Amino acid sequence: MYKVVLFRHGESQWNLENRFTGWTDVDLTENGRAEAVRAGKLLKEAGFKFDIAFTSLLTRAIRTLWTVLDEMGQMYIPVHPDWHLNERHYGALQGLNKAETAAQYGDEQVLIWRRAYAVAPNPLDKEDPRWPGNDERYAHIPKDLLPTTECLKDTVERVIPYWEETIVPFIKAGQNVVIAAHGNSLRALVKHLDHISNDDIVNLNIPTAQPLVYELDERMKPIRSYYLGDAEAIAAATAAVANQGKAK
Amino acid sequence: MYKVVLFRHGESQWNLENRFTGWTDVDLTENGRAEAVRAGKLLKEAGFKFDIAFTSLLTRAIRTLWTVLDEMGQMYIPVHPDWHLNERHYGALQGLNKAETAAQYGDEQVLIWRRAYAVAPNPLDKEDPRWPGNDERYAHIPKDLLPTTECLKDTVERVIPYWEETIVPFIKAGQNVVIAAHGNSLRALVKHLDHISNDDIVNLNIPTAQPLVYELDERMKPIRSYYLGDAEAIAAATAAVANQGKAK
Repeated sequence: MYKVVLFRHGESQWNLENRFTGWTDVDLTENGRAEAVRAGKLLKEAGFKFDIAFTSLLTRAIRTLWTVLDEMGQMYIPVHPDWHLNERHYGALQGLNKAETAAQYGDEQVLIWRRAYAVAPNPLDKEDPRWPGNDERYAHIPKDLLPTTECLKDTVERVIPYWEETIVPFIKAGQNVVIAAHGNSLRALVKHLDHISNDDIVNLNIPTAQPLVYELDERMKPIRSYYLGDAEAIAAATAAVANQGKAK
Repeated sequence: MYKVVLFRHGESQWNLENRFTGWTDVDLTENGRAEAVRAGKLLKEAGFKFDIAFTSLLTRAIRTLWTVLDEMGQMYIPVHPDWHLNERHYGALQGLNKAETAAQYGDEQVLIWRRAYAVAPNPLDKEDPRWPGNDERYAHIPKDLLPTTECLKDTVERVIPYWEETIVPFIKAGQNVVIAAHGNSLRALVKHLDHISNDDIVNLNIPTAQPLVYELDERMKPIRSYYLGDAEAIAAATAAVANQGKAK
C-alpha cells in the first residue's frame, strides 16, 4: 500500500481580493501562512514523514510547503519545483476582479470560463508581460509549451503526464511523497485518481492548506482518501472556496 | 567564465553559546536570520540570478538559503540538500562548551583538535544518539559512510568528490550555482579551489552569511574571488569567527 499527501497553498492575497490569479505570483496572506503552520502541525501530530516534495514554480505553493516542512522538522528533504504543477493559466482574465469581469463580460460568459471543462478564457498576446514566456522563471522551458490560456482540460493534460512520468516512479520506489500545489492542478490530479467525469469535476472544491491523504494500491488506484484534521473545519473551508468563486 | 556563490549559514544558537556544534541540528538565532536577509538583499542588489542551489541536511544552512532565495524573489529554483556539505563532524565533542572542554582536556589538546588538519576528536560510539546513523534524516545513506568523528582532512575528502562529481557538471553546463553550507565544509572547498596548504588552512576563517563569489575558468580554476558587500563589515565578521573559537 502506497500513500501520497496533497495540499493546496494557503490563502493568497488575490484569493482575498477575489481576483483571477492563475500564474500570477502573488504571495500568501498572514492568514495563509497561519493555515500552512496548522497543516504542518496536523501532519507532524499524525506522524507523517516525507522523503521528497513536489511543488509548482509559484511562491504561494512553495511558501506553504516550506512552512509545512519547517513545522514538521523536515526541511532537509529534496524539493522539486516544476511548472507542470502550476495553477491553471487564466489567460486574459489574470489580474481581473471576478465581480468586475462579470460586469464586463456578463455572468453567463464568466460562468462558462470558470466552470466549463473545455472552454478557455481569451488567450494572452505573447507580447503581454503576463505571458510566462516573458518571465525569467520559465526561461528553461521551451516557449511553445508555455500556455497563453488554459481550460481545466488543458491543465489535466499537463498535470497527469507529470504525475505519471515523474512522481509515480518515486511513489513506486517506496518514497513518501508530498505535493504542494493549487486548486486546479490538484483538481486535475484528483479527477484522474478518482475517475471523476468532465461534468462532475465542476462540483469538486479543494480547501486551502488541508492535507489530503491518498492510500493507493500498486496500480496507483485509490484504496481510500481523506482530509487530515477536524471534519467541520474542512467542510467550512471547502464551502468558503465554493462561494469565493461566485460573481457577486 | 563561470561563477559560483558560496555562503556560510548565519549565526546559530550554539555559535552564540560557544559550543561545538558539528552535525547537531541547531537553528539560527534572530541575528542569524537577519544576517541571511542582509545576504539576500546584497545578492539581489548585485543582480545575481541562480538556477540551482546546493546545501547541507542541516536546518541552519537550509534556513539561511531559503531566506536568501526569498529575499531575492527566487524561491522557485531547485534546492539539493546533501550530507556531503554538512559541517565537520566534531565526534565526542559535539554539544560541549568550548571553554569547559578546555578546562577538562587542557588548552593544548583542544587546540590540536580544533586546528590540526589531520587529528580528529574522540569518535562517538555508534550507540550514541549523536551518531548520525541513529538519526532518520540520514536513513537513506549507507551507515558505513556516516562519520563518528572527523578532522578537517576527512571533511575535505567528502566535500571535494561531491563538488567534482555533482556540482561542477551543473556549473560547466552554464547553470548559476549557489552553495549554502558551513564554516568547515566551505573551508574544505576554498582550500581545494585556492590550493591552500594543510598548514595555512588553519588561518582561514569564513564569516557567517557573507556571499563569497568565485569566478572560475573552464578548468574550475579561480580567476578571482571576493566577498560581496562592505569590506569593513566583512573584516569584522571574519575576526569575530576567528576569536569565537578561542578557549577563554
